[in-house]
Amino acid sequence: MGLLSEAATQALIPLAAAVGIGFALLQWFLVSRVSISGDPGKNDGFADNLMGDEEESTDEQAVVARCAEIQSAISVGATSFLYTEYKYLGVFTVVFSAIIFLFLGSVKGFSTEKEPCTYTKGRLCKPALAGAAFSALAFLLGAVTSVLSGFLGMKIATYANARTTLEARKGVGKAFVTAFRSGAVMGFLLAANGLLVLYISINVFKLYFRDDWEGLYESITGYGLGGSSMALFGRVGGGIYTKAADVGADLVGKVERNIPEDDPRNPAVIADNVGDNVGDIAGMGADLFGSYAESSCAALFIASISSFGVDHDFSAMSYPLIISSMGIVVCLITTLFATDFLEIKTVKEIEPSLKKQLLISTVLMTVGIAIVSFVALPSKFTLFDFGSEKTVKNWHLFFCVSAGLWTGLVIGYSTEYFTSSVYRPVRDVADSCRTGAATNVIFGLALGYKSVIVPIFAIAAAIYVSFSLAAMYGIAVAALGMLSTIATGLAIDAYGPISDNAGGIAEMAGMSRRIRERTDALDAAGNTTAAIGKGFAIGSAALVSLALFGAFVSRAGLKGVDVLAPKVFIGLLVGAMLPYWFSAMTMKSVGSAALKMVEEVRRQFNTIPGLLEGRTKPDYATCVKISTDASLKEMIPPGALVLLTPLIAGTFFGVETLSGVLAGSLVSGVQVAVSASNAGGAWDNAKKYIEAGATEHAKKLGPKGSDPHKAAVIGDTIGDPLKDTSGPSLNILIKLMAVESLVFAPFFAKHGGLLFKWF
Amino acid sequence: MGLLSEAATQALIPLAAAVGIGFALLQWFLVSRVSISGDPGKNDGFADNLMGDEEESTDEQAVVARCAEIQSAISVGATSFLYTEYKYLGVFTVVFSAIIFLFLGSVKGFSTEKEPCTYTKGRLCKPALAGAAFSALAFLLGAVTSVLSGFLGMKIATYANARTTLEARKGVGKAFVTAFRSGAVMGFLLAANGLLVLYISINVFKLYFRDDWEGLYESITGYGLGGSSMALFGRVGGGIYTKAADVGADLVGKVERNIPEDDPRNPAVIADNVGDNVGDIAGMGADLFGSYAESSCAALFIASISSFGVDHDFSAMSYPLIISSMGIVVCLITTLFATDFLEIKTVKEIEPSLKKQLLISTVLMTVGIAIVSFVALPSKFTLFDFGSEKTVKNWHLFFCVSAGLWTGLVIGYSTEYFTSSVYRPVRDVADSCRTGAATNVIFGLALGYKSVIVPIFAIAAAIYVSFSLAAMYGIAVAALGMLSTIATGLAIDAYGPISDNAGGIAEMAGMSRRIRERTDALDAAGNTTAAIGKGFAIGSAALVSLALFGAFVSRAGLKGVDVLAPKVFIGLLVGAMLPYWFSAMTMKSVGSAALKMVEEVRRQFNTIPGLLEGRTKPDYATCVKISTDASLKEMIPPGALVLLTPLIAGTFFGVETLSGVLAGSLVSGVQVAVSASNAGGAWDNAKKYIEAGATEHAKKLGPKGSDPHKAAVIGDTIGDPLKDTSGPSLNILIKLMAVESLVFAPFFAKHGGLLFKWF
Repeated sequence: MGLLSEAATQALIPLAAAVGIGFALLQWFLVSRVSISGDPGKNDGFADNLMGDEEESTDEQAVVARCAEIQSAISVGATSFLYTEYKYLGVFTVVFSAIIFLFLGSVKGFSTEKEPCTYTKGRLCKPALAGAAFSALAFLLGAVTSVLSGFLGMKIATYANARTTLEARKGVGKAFVTAFRSGAVMGFLLAANGLLVLYISINVFKLYFRDDWEGLYESITGYGLGGSSMALFGRVGGGIYTKAADVGADLVGKVERNIPEDDPRNPAVIADNVGDNVGDIAGMGADLFGSYAESSCAALFIASISSFGVDHDFSAMSYPLIISSMGIVVCLITTLFATDFLEIKTVKEIEPSLKKQLLISTVLMTVGIAIVSFVALPSKFTLFDFGSEKTVKNWHLFFCVSAGLWTGLVIGYSTEYFTSSVYRPVRDVADSCRTGAATNVIFGLALGYKSVIVPIFAIAAAIYVSFSLAAMYGIAVAALGMLSTIATGLAIDAYGPISDNAGGIAEMAGMSRRIRERTDALDAAGNTTAAIGKGFAIGSAALVSLALFGAFVSRAGLKGVDVLAPKVFIGLLVGAMLPYWFSAMTMKSVGSAALKMVEEVRRQFNTIPGLLEGRTKPDYATCVKISTDASLKEMIPPGALVLLTPLIAGTFFGVETLSGVLAGSLVSGVQVAVSASNAGGAWDNAKKYIEAGATEHAKKLGPKGSDPHKAAVIGDTIGDPLKDTSGPSLNILIKLMAVESLVFAPFFAKHGGLLFKWF
Repeated sequence: MGLLSEAATQALIPLAAAVGIGFALLQWFLVSRVSISGDPGKNDGFADNLMGDEEESTDEQAVVARCAEIQSAISVGATSFLYTEYKYLGVFTVVFSAIIFLFLGSVKGFSTEKEPCTYTKGRLCKPALAGAAFSALAFLLGAVTSVLSGFLGMKIATYANARTTLEARKGVGKAFVTAFRSGAVMGFLLAANGLLVLYISINVFKLYFRDDWEGLYESITGYGLGGSSMALFGRVGGGIYTKAADVGADLVGKVERNIPEDDPRNPAVIADNVGDNVGDIAGMGADLFGSYAESSCAALFIASISSFGVDHDFSAMSYPLIISSMGIVVCLITTLFATDFLEIKTVKEIEPSLKKQLLISTVLMTVGIAIVSFVALPSKFTLFDFGSEKTVKNWHLFFCVSAGLWTGLVIGYSTEYFTSSVYRPVRDVADSCRTGAATNVIFGLALGYKSVIVPIFAIAAAIYVSFSLAAMYGIAVAALGMLSTIATGLAIDAYGPISDNAGGIAEMAGMSRRIRERTDALDAAGNTTAAIGKGFAIGSAALVSLALFGAFVSRAGLKGVDVLAPKVFIGLLVGAMLPYWFSAMTMKSVGSAALKMVEEVRRQFNTIPGLLEGRTKPDYATCVKISTDASLKEMIPPGALVLLTPLIAGTFFGVETLSGVLAGSLVSGVQVAVSASNAGGAWDNAKKYIEAGATEHAKKLGPKGSDPHKAAVIGDTIGDPLKDTSGPSLNILIKLMAVESLVFAPFFAKHGGLLFKWF
């Protein structure tokens, strides 16, 4: 046993969660003190700091009122989307939890008899029917927590964007802090919530399962499945939503009607802004929550059939949860560096400050991991390793978790290099615009392909280290290591779309050029952090999927997955094809959804009198509803592809083929996702680089409206669905198929492979 | 033993090769009767047929003279390229054969002692040093045969293009037959040559090896490596060459100087036409020859350690060669359907006629396979299956070969569906040009991704059937089945670039609109057949690589390749990344090589007086030399990536990791290659569809110069490096790494994995 007693563990985890939630609420309170009512008296608390910074007169009541109005429209749109989405997701969740119950219950013919445990020989475990019921329940809990995370993230983001715009009047530092604090609210709420719900579920489930930890943690894996299913719909639906609105608004507004981007007369402009919150904030939140829930569940499941579980060592069992608790504390300190210890004064300091967040959290967390590993774990123990047992020491796990953590940093920095206009790759892409859109696209695609190299070697190294040291458990905790600083990762990621919206609001409210320059600078840095966030998401997804895949193989009773067995190889080949099939669907969906938006915007301009002149308000809600309905309809085929593939492969082709499918989609999906995200990010920033004209080179390519700029806009539009729809959705494809296979493994092992049984 | 005696086998194979070569020479003779000397008297033989068809007066001596002049320029350019390429390849071949000899010789410390055989227990085999020497020799033979195939293909293609143009004056049917016959020359020469050299090599090697068939066929695998190494350089170098010239010529000629495409005043126009022959003809020829050589070698190697080899049943051993011999006869009959039995009268009949070629050859070959399987094979035998033995019946092999053959047909038809403007996918892409280049690219990428689905399921089905029936031998002969109709496949593939060049020559020689319409129609069908050819190439490459991979695993002494071993998984992940790295390199190479071409073309327009007015001839040779030098320089990094990866992975990480790399690059590379080729083909034909304006829909989008057409041109340019450089080169990446691993397997098994040994 380690140094940490069970009682201390039982106290520390909820305490850390409470601290995280408290810190999030504190940040929310600080953001809320920025008034958008237009009453300057409310700003009193800031008055002493503001004296020197105040660069714009605060009595522009009209501007403030317009900001408040736009914010309210975005908020109404987001709520409208949530309302419709929940109707769909509610039906899906109920149906799918019934499927889980029926499939798993059928494994032992719905018997209510106790039965011998699968792994712990000689003990009696709870009936499979109970496992089926609790798995379905855990699925529901995971789904609700994920939806809650997305909802809260969206709420705080829509709450914060106008406030960031208003703070930009006082200087770039103030605006940065507001945007960053808002991101932190989301990051901490999500990390703490995920931990707390999981902790409570385990303790509640334990009331029934008692000493049957195998059954307990097997059921808990449903939590990860619930989280990731919601994330799939959040990412795909949100991605289609935001890009349909974006492309639709641009095609009619900018091209046909010649009005500027983000102009309030455009009926789709609110849908566009809502989309940023729906796709980038809620989608990313649900995605990372899913990764977090799944890696925890994978680690817990493997631990439960290792010596931790057999010996009923609760503190060691809870190692994944204690790591996450430590992560909340580390991120809390890290956040203070951005908001309190260091102050941003010029535009140039923004990106380095965000990069520093990554480095600080990684260094501090390394210490945190060391403490947790030596306190919570026995010095020596055994881990389940595909039927045999592997003897492991506590410092082995320290290396596993740290490997994941530092791989995250490498991926983050590599992503920054390939997507920030400070470095050569993006400048080369911008330069290629001189000879037109075609060369721009060729160079961008090549950049995306090239950007895969470093992350893949980093992930491979982390896998080798953690796999060799602690088998599948090592991979699972490596994933957790990468996600241990999730609160900071989400804060800097959410900062991006918040700044993007702040810029849009500044433009819509007709604020001065100086303020727009500040929000543009925030936004440009945000573009890079969004790409970094996507890098983290896919890196952690790769590790999580591998851990889940390993757990699935164990639970399905396979001794190994031999590529040179025909059943496995065809799975590998078809699995490697799935990311392409999925991307084909989502990219075409963006196209057809954008078309519907174009028709509605045209209709409003043609039928609402005085709209183009700015005398009447457009009907924002209809555009929001069209985007909502279209995205929810278009997301069904790709969603079905992901959710049905494991069921079909497992039921008809059996667990060997399914193993191949999982491995194939994992190794192929990572490449497609990374290259799509980075190519899209690079095109976007190449366009911004030309627009900003900050260097001699950029000035030669610009200004807005020049031929190279037009070529850059084409690249940016092509990158939109790649980086915001198909690319990031692939994370969920590989994770979700793996966790679904794990949950249904007992059914596939018992009844699977029908096709081969028939022939 | 089967019905066929050894003597009959020894007679039949060279006979089939001789028939193939004879038929090729006959076709060449028929093509050569089209005179380009401008002397109408030489056309006497055709005079009786021509009476009715003659639509243009033949006394346009000037036109004929110009055609002859342009053809000669293209021929000079091609020879210039060959000259430079051979210098590079000569050095490489000598160095690499030395590496083979040293690496393999070192396995047993360069001992000249006889030693116990690896697979046939209780027998003495020739020393490893002899194996090393003969492997190096086989490598040289493969390299020379491959170079010869490419050279002959290029020669006949440059010989045929002007003749096709001239025949187009007499009608579309005449032009079609000339282009098709020329393609057939290449197809039959290549198939027959490959077979003959392999047959002779085996018989010569047998003089030394005698009853040591294990050593004999192990050495023969060097033949495949030699063929594929040359193919790599042919494909990559040729691909960079053709697209650098194409993009460079367009950017200066069309954009800056406002002169039409294929205008003889453009200094890069000859390089562009040379490129078609260098990249599409020679590259494709070397590629398919490589696949053919490798699948034969893989099948022969596995057979030699199965009961065929142990029992010294020469006829059964030669099954792969007899299948290829039968293929030559079947293709001969099939060709007659295109050139003699059926006659093309209208433009609309071209594409169906080419499609019919695929169907006829597949149906006839199925009968041929049945005959060979029942005559050459014993009714029951055993095959090596990763250390154990598998009992197989002769009709099992019939199914294996047929599975490959029919999969080729499915891939061909699926490719046609996705790249021909007759069907909806290409029309959707063309339609998306209405809203600009961005939507065109998004739809094209989505089409490319979607086009992967059917080929992958077809390949998976073929793999499952042949793998289950006859293990790795089944896969190897399935690949041979797909390639058994290689003569027909190459004929319809080479037909494409020949027609493309014919169109260019018609334009350059200033021929009438009517004739250009005919060559355009030939060319449009050629675009689709080129895509089909690429589909065949990648499909067969997938099967060949798998067979080679299996042979490598056997020879490296592995019992299986478990994905869930850390060493294997990291290989799988990194292997799946390699196609992206490789594509990033080749796509950027096209960009930078095109830039150099742009500079030279600009220089000539600026410094050569009277060039733009057409009074002076441009300096074609310098452009050809620039394209040659640039392409040969730019191909070194991707070539090194492919050739060094197996050596580094095997030497430092060992055979397990290398297995992972091979599997990963195989399953990922297939997807990237298919999607790149088809997206490129679809963009090209979408542009042609708008230009031709054959339907109401197309007329609405056109004409040339309209906004949708401009958007389509951008898509076409993006597709160029995808479909002609990076996509098709990936075939060779996956094949070459596999065959290289197989050849070096004894070295890796003995000395590999240094890194893991050190730590």
